[in-house]
Amino acid sequence: VSNIQDFHSGRGMNLENEINESNKFYRAGDYALIYKKPTPVQVVRVDYPERRRAKIVEAYYRTPSTTDYNGVYRGKYIDFEAKETKNKTSFPIYLIHPHQIEHLKKVKFHGGIGFFIIRFTSHNETYLVDAPLLIEKIETIKRESIPYDWFRENGHIIKEGYQPRLQYLKVVDKLYFS
Amino acid sequence: VSNIQDFHSGRGMNLENEINESNKFYRAGDYALIYKKPTPVQVVRVDYPERRRAKIVEAYYRTPSTTDYNGVYRGKYIDFEAKETKNKTSFPIYLIHPHQIEHLKKVKFHGGIGFFIIRFTSHNETYLVDAPLLIEKIETIKRESIPYDWFRENGHIIKEGYQPRLQYLKVVDKLYFS
Ligand SMILES: [Mg+2]
Ligand SMILES: [Mg+2]
Repeated sequence: VSNIQDFHSGRGMNLENEINESNKFYRAGDYALIYKKPTPVQVVRVDYPERRRAKIVEAYYRTPSTTDYNGVYRGKYIDFEAKETKNKTSFPIYLIHPHQIEHLKKVKFHGGIGFFIIRFTSHNETYLVDAPLLIEKIETIKRESIPYDWFRENGHIIKEGYQPRLQYLKVVDKLYFS
Repeated sequence: VSNIQDFHSGRGMNLENEINESNKFYRAGDYALIYKKPTPVQVVRVDYPERRRAKIVEAYYRTPSTTDYNGVYRGKYIDFEAKETKNKTSFPIYLIHPHQIEHLKKVKFHGGIGFFIIRFTSHNETYLVDAPLLIEKIETIKRESIPYDWFRENGHIIKEGYQPRLQYLKVVDKLYFS
């Protein structure tokens, strides 16, 4: 129940939760088949306190080699990374890791659709930005961060609603299928 | 070093390892961008014995909602599940879980390429089988297992080599791109 209340009010939902909810909606309606990849965990030791269920008692988070989300939509491979910042005037580049950039370059190379979903929490705004475009900016800008205005000009606002919470596939339609 | 020896001899490599090695090769050569999805783990408790590294001290394996592998190849979304059996005369259907069938049906629906890689270890043979084809067989056969001969007729032998170990993209080329 508390989940549903959070969902209604939007409180307690961070970007990742909202994307997960939206993907669930998109999957249930057969709009798209997109999942969050599980966080990779290196398991060192497992106990079997009850016969039926393995209990992991020592494990460590590993650095993912790829991005947060992937799947298929309208016959195309979809791959994206989600980031949020509290900064008002710019997006810190360090939030995007080199392996994520490399991965999204390869997505493009192989004919997939790659993008970022970037939220400025202080502005209550979420942008979809084409991966090659943002990567080019990252690789040419002579600063540690990208101005907020750049996203207003080059990103695409994702409308928020009830279902799905984040209507990001509408932006994908406009940007990659029209 | 022992890894390399295992790799050469083929000993100590199970199907999943061989696919992982093959995908690494395919990625390194920019042939395809396909990864094994991490096993989902539900983390219950984390300690911080050293300041820098989180140690997971209680966690449980969760049932994956999808398949083992996905990615992009020649502009198409690729999704597959790998299974091996020691059985000589048939493949037990229970090895394929209902959620894997449902997922691969949706892959097809959304225009992706879905298949199974099935290894009969006793025959030293690995087959690629189109997912819709095997799923139809599973849903119509009145037995708990599918005869080995069915795979000989409807599957496609994956050649094994040094690099990549399993040349499964050659079968994908023939089956889905020609
Ligand atoms: Mg992220
Ligand atoms: Mg498997």
